[in-house]
Amino acid sequence: MSDAIGSGRQKIHWARGHMPIQREIATRFREERPLAGHRIGMSLHLEAKTASLAMTLAEGGASLYVIESNPLATQDDVAAALAETEGITVNARRGVSQEEHREHIDALLETRPTLIVEDGGEVVERIAEVGIERFAELKGLSEETTTGVEQLLSLERDGRLPIPAIAVNSARMKHLIDNRYGTGQSTWNAILRATNLLVAGKQVLIIGYGWCGRGLALRAAGLGARVLVTDIDEIAAVEGLMQGYEVVSLSEGMRRADYVITATGQPSAVGRPELEQAKDGVVLANAGHFGFEIDVTELRKMANRETVSRDGVRGFELPDGRTLYLLGEGELVNLSVADGHPVEIMDISFALQALSQEYLAKNADALPAKVHRVPDDIEHHVARLVLSTMSPSFLA
Amino acid sequence: MSDAIGSGRQKIHWARGHMPIQREIATRFREERPLAGHRIGMSLHLEAKTASLAMTLAEGGASLYVIESNPLATQDDVAAALAETEGITVNARRGVSQEEHREHIDALLETRPTLIVEDGGEVVERIAEVGIERFAELKGLSEETTTGVEQLLSLERDGRLPIPAIAVNSARMKHLIDNRYGTGQSTWNAILRATNLLVAGKQVLIIGYGWCGRGLALRAAGLGARVLVTDIDEIAAVEGLMQGYEVVSLSEGMRRADYVITATGQPSAVGRPELEQAKDGVVLANAGHFGFEIDVTELRKMANRETVSRDGVRGFELPDGRTLYLLGEGELVNLSVADGHPVEIMDISFALQALSQEYLAKNADALPAKVHRVPDDIEHHVARLVLSTMSPSFLA
Amino acid sequence: MSDAIGSGRQKIHWARGHMPIQREIATRFREERPLAGHRIGMSLHLEAKTASLAMTLAEGGASLYVIESNPLATQDDVAAALAETEGITVNARRGVSQEEHREHIDALLETRPTLIVEDGGEVVERIAEVGIERFAELKGLSEETTTGVEQLLSLERDGRLPIPAIAVNSARMKHLIDNRYGTGQSTWNAILRATNLLVAGKQVLIIGYGWCGRGLALRAAGLGARVLVTDIDEIAAVEGLMQGYEVVSLSEGMRRADYVITATGQPSAVGRPELEQAKDGVVLANAGHFGFEIDVTELRKMANRETVSRDGVRGFELPDGRTLYLLGEGELVNLSVADGHPVEIMDISFALQALSQEYLAKNADALPAKVHRVPDDIEHHVARLVLSTMSPSFLA
Amino acid sequence: MSDAIGSGRQKIHWARGHMPIQREIATRFREERPLAGHRIGMSLHLEAKTASLAMTLAEGGASLYVIESNPLATQDDVAAALAETEGITVNARRGVSQEEHREHIDALLETRPTLIVEDGGEVVERIAEVGIERFAELKGLSEETTTGVEQLLSLERDGRLPIPAIAVNSARMKHLIDNRYGTGQSTWNAILRATNLLVAGKQVLIIGYGWCGRGLALRAAGLGARVLVTDIDEIAAVEGLMQGYEVVSLSEGMRRADYVITATGQPSAVGRPELEQAKDGVVLANAGHFGFEIDVTELRKMANRETVSRDGVRGFELPDGRTLYLLGEGELVNLSVADGHPVEIMDISFALQALSQEYLAKNADALPAKVHRVPDDIEHHVARLVLSTMSPSFLA
Repeated sequence: MSDAIGSGRQKIHWARGHMPIQREIATRFREERPLAGHRIGMSLHLEAKTASLAMTLAEGGASLYVIESNPLATQDDVAAALAETEGITVNARRGVSQEEHREHIDALLETRPTLIVEDGGEVVERIAEVGIERFAELKGLSEETTTGVEQLLSLERDGRLPIPAIAVNSARMKHLIDNRYGTGQSTWNAILRATNLLVAGKQVLIIGYGWCGRGLALRAAGLGARVLVTDIDEIAAVEGLMQGYEVVSLSEGMRRADYVITATGQPSAVGRPELEQAKDGVVLANAGHFGFEIDVTELRKMANRETVSRDGVRGFELPDGRTLYLLGEGELVNLSVADGHPVEIMDISFALQALSQEYLAKNADALPAKVHRVPDDIEHHVARLVLSTMSPSFLA
Repeated sequence: MSDAIGSGRQKIHWARGHMPIQREIATRFREERPLAGHRIGMSLHLEAKTASLAMTLAEGGASLYVIESNPLATQDDVAAALAETEGITVNARRGVSQEEHREHIDALLETRPTLIVEDGGEVVERIAEVGIERFAELKGLSEETTTGVEQLLSLERDGRLPIPAIAVNSARMKHLIDNRYGTGQSTWNAILRATNLLVAGKQVLIIGYGWCGRGLALRAAGLGARVLVTDIDEIAAVEGLMQGYEVVSLSEGMRRADYVITATGQPSAVGRPELEQAKDGVVLANAGHFGFEIDVTELRKMANRETVSRDGVRGFELPDGRTLYLLGEGELVNLSVADGHPVEIMDISFALQALSQEYLAKNADALPAKVHRVPDDIEHHVARLVLSTMSPSFLA
Repeated sequence: MSDAIGSGRQKIHWARGHMPIQREIATRFREERPLAGHRIGMSLHLEAKTASLAMTLAEGGASLYVIESNPLATQDDVAAALAETEGITVNARRGVSQEEHREHIDALLETRPTLIVEDGGEVVERIAEVGIERFAELKGLSEETTTGVEQLLSLERDGRLPIPAIAVNSARMKHLIDNRYGTGQSTWNAILRATNLLVAGKQVLIIGYGWCGRGLALRAAGLGARVLVTDIDEIAAVEGLMQGYEVVSLSEGMRRADYVITATGQPSAVGRPELEQAKDGVVLANAGHFGFEIDVTELRKMANRETVSRDGVRGFELPDGRTLYLLGEGELVNLSVADGHPVEIMDISFALQALSQEYLAKNADALPAKVHRVPDDIEHHVARLVLSTMSPSFLA
Repeated sequence: MSDAIGSGRQKIHWARGHMPIQREIATRFREERPLAGHRIGMSLHLEAKTASLAMTLAEGGASLYVIESNPLATQDDVAAALAETEGITVNARRGVSQEEHREHIDALLETRPTLIVEDGGEVVERIAEVGIERFAELKGLSEETTTGVEQLLSLERDGRLPIPAIAVNSARMKHLIDNRYGTGQSTWNAILRATNLLVAGKQVLIIGYGWCGRGLALRAAGLGARVLVTDIDEIAAVEGLMQGYEVVSLSEGMRRADYVITATGQPSAVGRPELEQAKDGVVLANAGHFGFEIDVTELRKMANRETVSRDGVRGFELPDGRTLYLLGEGELVNLSVADGHPVEIMDISFALQALSQEYLAKNADALPAKVHRVPDDIEHHVARLVLSTMSPSFLA
């Protein structure tokens, strides 16, 4: 056993040890084998909690083909350890290029999956491009993120959605919990780890006040920051205002912020004009799915010199003397410089995934090729499992 | 001018002075007269902010007939002052019986309204009972509360909804703002005023973790309380847990709480069994629309003796020696013992109402007899008006 | 019995019912009579909780002579009800002039008190003026406030302190609790009651970040405000910054704030220059002991016109069109427009007072004429009594 | 240049780049050379921020001899890089035994220091043991921590304090800021990094509600935890209660907590009886200076098996099936598994140190061998420097 495998096993062991809901589902899956005969293609951020989901699905009888969904969100030791599991093939690597990543998607599709679990909508987009007729056995997919669900809805609107898709992100147990409390804690964990800088008394700009943004703001305030919020949706802005944050225009926020965090789902939310306004010493981090929210290409063009300041922190020295610090190359910061969402949060989100896959295995033939909600009884079942662990008196 | 009228005028003057959105809409209405020829029946909690809405609608050209929507939520001095306004008839009084209240509803309907603004769904229920054919000129209504919108949806499901209805409460600018931040501040204002007791270090039970409950919990924590949350919906309970509150069963919460606040929309949420469990000295308050959430009839049966402890506080002495304190007779506490929502909150909610009435006046003939959302552009328009006052740099 | 006496009795009954520590001390005092033979002169804000302290001291065997310590902080109905108690003489009235108030102080001194309880240091200052030789039987005093303790220390430094004085305010159980959590809750209760305006999303300027200021800021943030802090002490300012507030200069704060609250102990903390900078519509409130922190005389000079906007709210219309709203005439706002500190807070502070009076009765002859701390064992005893009521598991 | 030196240099560069106050003092020191001719013995947690202080002192003209103050709080790469600086000798290594650490203290003393900067009071204790007559040139010392200051006061009470000592920890700018906001952020950073577990909705027990404990509780609540507080001082417990935390006995806290953090300064605050009560899966961390607050020896005796679960996390499997997780071997967790306090916090604390050393160099001959406060003008000067960076409008 290589060192990497040992380290990967240790991480998976720790994660699975703190995922009681996964373990409970896996126990039932082992008996009932609801996924027997299924080939599941999985494109997720490959770290220990994701490995645990893969193992749960494998317990249900499926064989899995696993790729990364984001170049910097793969932990290679975990990938190596997971690949040892019976029935699971792993084709993922940290730091793949966009081209390699597309090749992995195609390799996944060549395994003729019957079900797909994905994060970001790239696989379904590829299927739509190639044509569903090529994937006769494919029954359905479940999608993890806001970004991916927006992609599904766009495909549906255009009449191009090829298969029934469960929008896991739209479940209340997902976006109310994972996007808010998961992103909030893990993003700040990553920023603190990368920088060792103080948050109290600093100005933090949150760009995008959706569920992720709400969590980022909540935890920023919890660390003693003064929170600045901006959003193109005025109603979200009013909500931020009432919550006690200062609502600012994007340009005012950029001029004042010590930390800038993006959670918009939009490319170049922080583009050249915003980078021009940023304060000397600003810390820039992205909490959205894709690494395009901060325009790193422009930042690189603007800089005279680029240095690694600390692990995961890159300093861009501008001709006017300012230095802007970018975390995790602008990729999803909680995964690129830390370990992603807290384990217990992913236990919840992946319980929805595992049960949605089971639901698709049983019911997909009867479902139209539309975007579907996670069935209510799955949500309530998962909620009860959470409460039985964390708040037993509620159910007493 | 009687003293009451003077006092009512002063209150309306103060409220309208702090309602810049109302004033801006009124200025346009005065020119455009979009409600000319309309007879509007209005059933709302009649205090100064409501009077301001009535005046805005009157500026739009409507004549109004105004009744109370809740027995203890009428301020008689405001009613008297409002009645002086040209084009506005007031038939409302604090402390009316349920029978008188029903008579007022019938009196309102006898004025053959063309539009209705209401709070709680009683008027539309009465129309459905009597038959829409009796109200040929009636075009539509707009409804203010969660409770009333549930009533509308129930009528729609049963095929009994007689007219197009705009669910103002379903607007994000309404339930995200008014239900949460309005209810949160004003309910605690009422409790502090009525009791002069300490909140810090006390246990507060919030029954019902919807938008109102979220606001009640937020402000309880902001006052230093330890917050206990319960809800029949497990998903809401998980959300409360992640927010940092303690999630408990209703019976555990009743046994421990120093303050109990209901926001469920359900009759007898605190019924005999819960009252039996309450702690000596507990303070009971209702933040839901109807005065039925705490079962006052049962409480009265249980008590040996009933005393007025302070204005708005009634002590019920039980045979076992405990005393339970009920605020504002169990009616909506922010209105029965204080002045209702903060002025600026109602400026927002009533801006939605005023613009929804204008929208119905223009478009109701083309709308099916269904529950409709407030049009998006109305919401965004109101949000921009809020930001222009409270956060001008956002729009800079 | 007059109505006022009935209302005063009801208030005292409610307060005493929520003061378990007072009741426990009173029970022991009734048996031990530690104050037998003493004449206690009391100058405190005369409302229901103070009445309860007077009753506790009377149970200990003392006769009392009670005057107001602040013109607007007397509740006449409570004064009337208290005057009915055996052994207690009351000479206090709401709205006395400064001259009458000085006459009351002199009348108190003419009763040849053996002990004094006071709030603000005016009585001890008067004794120092008149000469201690006139008060041969006077053994000591206990002082309630920051302002009064500063006065005592100033007298001590000048060699003019005539008698041993216990600085109750310096007790941790006093300033950490009463000044912070008592002032925080009760001041905001008063502001909400007086104005019915929204706090969430507004800018609140706290002038003076001592223990009172910390409590005011904490509760402002708890209500959703953006908090601006200023203090002449830079170290206090850094602390406010780290707590997450925005630290500003006084003039910037005045220009931006929607609410301004003073807690400095200094005359004219908000003087003419600050009033000139205030925003149209600003709400001005004072949370310090004396009514001189906001310069009302200057405000009156600046105004064209003065109106009563709501109970306890006076609008000052300036020639430039701005209106500034002053709460409770600039006197201590929690007492002038509401009911003062929460009952349970005063139960703690007055337990320290009652036990300090007992300590003086036993030990004052042996104490030098200096400022003394509340003995540690009194503080710990009171702390245990608080915990036994509010947190029984701690002592289990 | 070895890799370690490169990595150490990078860390020091980052830290010093975010320490504007150090840089400002160093600039003046370089000109004025106030420490010329001094030999400073330094015993501190040796990581990048400490290195920056050493460099500031060296700029002042001193030669330095630097040892570790705690076995796990040395970063070897930083030690290597610092050792390259002219005038600085480093004798520190991560993971030294207690015996080696004592040898380092003696080696430091053999350099005949004229001034000492230390953290924890071990050097001064050793001087008192050996006899001050051996250190004729030694003028004074400055001490960083609560623990060390208590040691100084104990030596002073026993008449054994050999030299004048400045209690840097007693400065308001130190304990109000560093102990609270520094410990609060950095301890949680360490726990999140080590565990990747969720904090929201969990129960966190803070043992010891002093300035460190207050910061730990504040940030725990900011992360969404339910905070349990215990302290042997009942007054501190009441303060925790009023702040909104649940005050519990130590044993109840141990039975309920998901995370236990010690900040008591006491050995075996969590000893065998407490470990017996801990919940399966509990995470144990120490935030106090010495690694004796959690009794690791007993924990080891209790366990069947010990495993490394993640970097910095050791699992102790007990015969009854429970596993208890200990972070950073029970040593100060923010230093043993993370990078210590945020840079800007140490910029403040070390500014006090640098200026205290300068003060001692100038004035120690005139100072008695007592514990002295940091002079007020040093504190205010540092406060103004903080505000000039973080809140420029305050000073405008």
